[in-house]
Amino acid sequence: MIVVMKPGSTQQQINHIVELVEQLGLRSHVIVGTERTVIAALGEKRDGAKQALETGDGVEKVVPILAPYKMASTEVRKDPTCVSALEFKVGAGHIGVIAGPCSVENEEQILHVAREVKAAGAAALRGGAFKPRTSPYSFQGMKEKGLELLALARAETGLAVVSEVMAPEHVPLLKRYVDVLQVGARNMQNYTLLEAVGESGMPVLLKRGPAATMDEFLLAAEYILKTGNTQVILCERGIRTFEDHTRFTLPLATVPYLKQTTHLPIIVDPSHGTGKANLVAPMAVAAIAAGADGLMVEVHPDPEKALSDGYQSLTPAAFAAMMVECRKVARALGRDL
Amino acid sequence: MIVVMKPGSTQQQINHIVELVEQLGLRSHVIVGTERTVIAALGEKRDGAKQALETGDGVEKVVPILAPYKMASTEVRKDPTCVSALEFKVGAGHIGVIAGPCSVENEEQILHVAREVKAAGAAALRGGAFKPRTSPYSFQGMKEKGLELLALARAETGLAVVSEVMAPEHVPLLKRYVDVLQVGARNMQNYTLLEAVGESGMPVLLKRGPAATMDEFLLAAEYILKTGNTQVILCERGIRTFEDHTRFTLPLATVPYLKQTTHLPIIVDPSHGTGKANLVAPMAVAAIAAGADGLMVEVHPDPEKALSDGYQSLTPAAFAAMMVECRKVARALGRDL
Amino acid sequence: MIVVMKPGSTQQQINHIVELVEQLGLRSHVIVGTERTVIAALGEKRDGAKQALETGDGVEKVVPILAPYKMASTEVRKDPTCVSALEFKVGAGHIGVIAGPCSVENEEQILHVAREVKAAGAAALRGGAFKPRTSPYSFQGMKEKGLELLALARAETGLAVVSEVMAPEHVPLLKRYVDVLQVGARNMQNYTLLEAVGESGMPVLLKRGPAATMDEFLLAAEYILKTGNTQVILCERGIRTFEDHTRFTLPLATVPYLKQTTHLPIIVDPSHGTGKANLVAPMAVAAIAAGADGLMVEVHPDPEKALSDGYQSLTPAAFAAMMVECRKVARALGRDL
Amino acid sequence: MIVVMKPGSTQQQINHIVELVEQLGLRSHVIVGTERTVIAALGEKRDGAKQALETGDGVEKVVPILAPYKMASTEVRKDPTCVSALEFKVGAGHIGVIAGPCSVENEEQILHVAREVKAAGAAALRGGAFKPRTSPYSFQGMKEKGLELLALARAETGLAVVSEVMAPEHVPLLKRYVDVLQVGARNMQNYTLLEAVGESGMPVLLKRGPAATMDEFLLAAEYILKTGNTQVILCERGIRTFEDHTRFTLPLATVPYLKQTTHLPIIVDPSHGTGKANLVAPMAVAAIAAGADGLMVEVHPDPEKALSDGYQSLTPAAFAAMMVECRKVARALGRDL
Repeated sequence: MIVVMKPGSTQQQINHIVELVEQLGLRSHVIVGTERTVIAALGEKRDGAKQALETGDGVEKVVPILAPYKMASTEVRKDPTCVSALEFKVGAGHIGVIAGPCSVENEEQILHVAREVKAAGAAALRGGAFKPRTSPYSFQGMKEKGLELLALARAETGLAVVSEVMAPEHVPLLKRYVDVLQVGARNMQNYTLLEAVGESGMPVLLKRGPAATMDEFLLAAEYILKTGNTQVILCERGIRTFEDHTRFTLPLATVPYLKQTTHLPIIVDPSHGTGKANLVAPMAVAAIAAGADGLMVEVHPDPEKALSDGYQSLTPAAFAAMMVECRKVARALGRDL
Repeated sequence: MIVVMKPGSTQQQINHIVELVEQLGLRSHVIVGTERTVIAALGEKRDGAKQALETGDGVEKVVPILAPYKMASTEVRKDPTCVSALEFKVGAGHIGVIAGPCSVENEEQILHVAREVKAAGAAALRGGAFKPRTSPYSFQGMKEKGLELLALARAETGLAVVSEVMAPEHVPLLKRYVDVLQVGARNMQNYTLLEAVGESGMPVLLKRGPAATMDEFLLAAEYILKTGNTQVILCERGIRTFEDHTRFTLPLATVPYLKQTTHLPIIVDPSHGTGKANLVAPMAVAAIAAGADGLMVEVHPDPEKALSDGYQSLTPAAFAAMMVECRKVARALGRDL
Repeated sequence: MIVVMKPGSTQQQINHIVELVEQLGLRSHVIVGTERTVIAALGEKRDGAKQALETGDGVEKVVPILAPYKMASTEVRKDPTCVSALEFKVGAGHIGVIAGPCSVENEEQILHVAREVKAAGAAALRGGAFKPRTSPYSFQGMKEKGLELLALARAETGLAVVSEVMAPEHVPLLKRYVDVLQVGARNMQNYTLLEAVGESGMPVLLKRGPAATMDEFLLAAEYILKTGNTQVILCERGIRTFEDHTRFTLPLATVPYLKQTTHLPIIVDPSHGTGKANLVAPMAVAAIAAGADGLMVEVHPDPEKALSDGYQSLTPAAFAAMMVECRKVARALGRDL
Repeated sequence: MIVVMKPGSTQQQINHIVELVEQLGLRSHVIVGTERTVIAALGEKRDGAKQALETGDGVEKVVPILAPYKMASTEVRKDPTCVSALEFKVGAGHIGVIAGPCSVENEEQILHVAREVKAAGAAALRGGAFKPRTSPYSFQGMKEKGLELLALARAETGLAVVSEVMAPEHVPLLKRYVDVLQVGARNMQNYTLLEAVGESGMPVLLKRGPAATMDEFLLAAEYILKTGNTQVILCERGIRTFEDHTRFTLPLATVPYLKQTTHLPIIVDPSHGTGKANLVAPMAVAAIAAGADGLMVEVHPDPEKALSDGYQSLTPAAFAAMMVECRKVARALGRDL
């Protein structure tokens, strides 16, 4: 860390910070500049050290040097991680596509979508059974009955099943039916949930919270990794900004940034990332072009009748067309999809 | 709802939307304008109706007319709600101040702070025992031992105790020790938690998520109200924006907006809202001037040694000085503090 | 427009709004719903009508139905506009790439870059001669001497020259040397400048302001179009958000959104849009995949020695490699580059 | 500056950066940490030095230590600056209130408002004659005729006149009629305009751009100060965020932050800052409580008939009531208004 002293800080204040640095088990190094004094604090970063120094008398700011996460970092593990479940593979060169309805609604719907997205090239099926809804008056999902239908669709198609888990106590139930546990954007910093999915040993798809920085996103992943579970997929799904022509703003630069920063696979959800069906395909193609390891796309046989997220769902035919474009781009760039 | 058709929409598309509106149990009303056709959909709003209409062929957008929340609205209940616990009262004319350390660290610390904030005029003591921390490597709280110390401080001072609950399964434990359950900003949309705190029957302090709109904030409150528990305090604690000279941006216009929109009390947390100790007092005074029903402020006997949030904590002396200013402003505006 | 009355609005208030609507030369249409009354105001939208109605007693909000811009809209002109200068063509199927240094620094630099970017496939050369700099202490550009060097580079390579104009009084000077006038992001709402560049009759490259909505962006274009000048290129260059791992957030969904909304060509600037050289190429490729009509990229022979924006500039070799990838993707999608 | 090297940077890369630092005329100081090497660059900051170092091979990031502005800083001038025009005084203990209509519309309107706001305690009159409007179809102001009416209102009431200037070439014209030149939010980074108003020698009111950081805001002020003109008033008028219940988000923490950072006076515009008439008064009172040196408020005799900004304008009576509350708070805090 670098401790920057205020202009005009006294020798006594500087000495106090040096002492504080040393009490924290770090080595100090004082640099007297033209207008400011700066104190470097060297050594293993201790939690709380930054905060303690920040409150020191005469301190203007403390600049951290090291990234706050460890196990997610390419500094710790150079080789990209591949996360897999059945024939769904994502990362380390594999592009994996997850598709399906926002919510499981009935047997016919989920089986129909499963067959269609499989035919178009998806390797995993999404479908919500426990639905976190902004309004308590909205459809909350079919619960266990929905999970049973997802398992049925898997049995018929061989697609891996991805479904959201909303509470630690539901983990054992989901484990019986699904292949990948999804942690939704609203729960990205629900730490008891992160620990529970980590301890399940199952692959986890972690969605970025709409106000999360990259450090916060990777630290959320770190909660899972710390349990010993390395099967974590990161998913960019859009952030909250002032833009109002889309539901969220989809910042695709996240993809190349994370490819350089972490070994975990990064996929993109253009459905939530735009909130408009007619923008999904161009952003899916762009995500592949930016280097994404996969996609998560909402597909519904009849979006007009969907119980949730119809406005951002593709029909099976539109999804198939999107996959054709994605495949062209992937192949042009020497990747396989 | 108002359904706005695209320019050049056909009569067939319009007829289809009219049918859809009627299938949804709503009355339709077609208005042919100079350049667009607009269809009003009248009646009790049905969940999912907006979404179904949005996906209709030829539809440009659907504009909701009614607020999505009900029980939180001043349309349903005109009289302001007072939330109370022991001598702590907030709302309906009462200004309640909650103060204390970010985390409970030890007996001496919490008792010392409790006495000091009580003397300065606080009616409730805050202190984290279960701490949601961005990094898994940060101090995670003293857990039950921390709750015991909070209860001890209450026994000695009479202050009501406010502490955060991170998971539904912890609710019974917290209920044994604390007076007000806090739902943190990261968990504002953790719906299983909202239902659990609602069902506890205890007063709940609900913090705004840093990317939550007012509708989302009030809908989160609605999850609690829907359980029959009306003791909900809303807390503005800052939002995520591009500003980098403060940790969050504290939008005080939330206060008068919510006073006009909901009967629930609204308090302000200038500690998280600024993230800088030297900005806390001016923003606390401004919050009272804007009409806030209370404050939540971090106070630590020795911020430099705090295990969390020292950079934004006031010393007991600074807190007492802040209270003097707040009281002057409250009284000047004819309010009591 | 749709005027939504507050719940409990009186008949007198409703009558008053109806009168106001009619005074504004619009037809009114009252719709009495279950909980609210809504008044549709039909006819040609009059400027100020929305504002007048918004202040009416008993009015909750006024919802506009029509987009506020006209000449930029696909509703007015269906065929895409092609903007061209020398051999540089953008829009209506043409992908045009503009490349060059942030600032013109000397003859050798600009000639070297011009040759290299031409060889790699760019059709236009960028280079700042008048530089708007955040700090008054930063290099402000070579002024007219820089323009002369740009003209020299054009003479040698045949590239069209794009350069920023900062004030109406500079327009005649730039007109003597350059082919496309650039209006920078900071000046997107400098209306006297917009009118001046419009009246110049020259092609204009209009950059999106970092806090501009799509309506504001298109209304800024409308200031230029209203002068009769239809040669306007829109340029997405990133917005201000809370993200701190990139300099700006580059929202590529702007591209397909604008393709559906306006006939004007839309290009992307991944250099300013990310602010990091190592993210430029992936975002350039993604922009092409999303359907962009062109790119604007900073290239410097020796970024380390650049007088401005070195951190986001590509070397000529990196630019050439980027063009190879962009071309692969364009061709895979049936476009020519 | 502090140059942070990437993990695993080579000795050769480090040597190269040291050389670069020295070529830039700075002293270098290498600190070898446990995981990273850090190089401090000491001496007078040279423009461009940060950028040059950022592009160096093996460099992860460069952290500036000094604020980028100088003349605006409390480090250069400790005593607060008072800006004055006629009897209007702001800063250095003086609270100055500017009030008036968004646009000058006719003689009766401006004289009426001028008398009313004077009676309520305002010392300056605002009124737009040259109006920057988002849409080219909106009312653009009365131009010189409007300035004449403002001068008439000044002659009658003694109020100082504040009006916006949109282009350098208008400065001489405005100088003949007004006392304070306003630079609008859209023009905060219109550097030719900043230089022109600086050179006018007149007091300048500089509004914060809705996406401007504090550093950018103070650097814009620095453009004016650098001309030798120290009569600069900073005005917080709200920022662009995701919030949609207000037109902008008004971040009052700007006030105490700037009071600590700069000697220039800082005032608040709660009209643009909220965009809703019913939120203006509470935010005005809160701004005074936060320590603001003044206010700028839109007042119109009949907001419903206003040609611009009616929805956020107060009636003279509402303004007078607001002033009563502001005065109570100012006096309670020992300030005079």
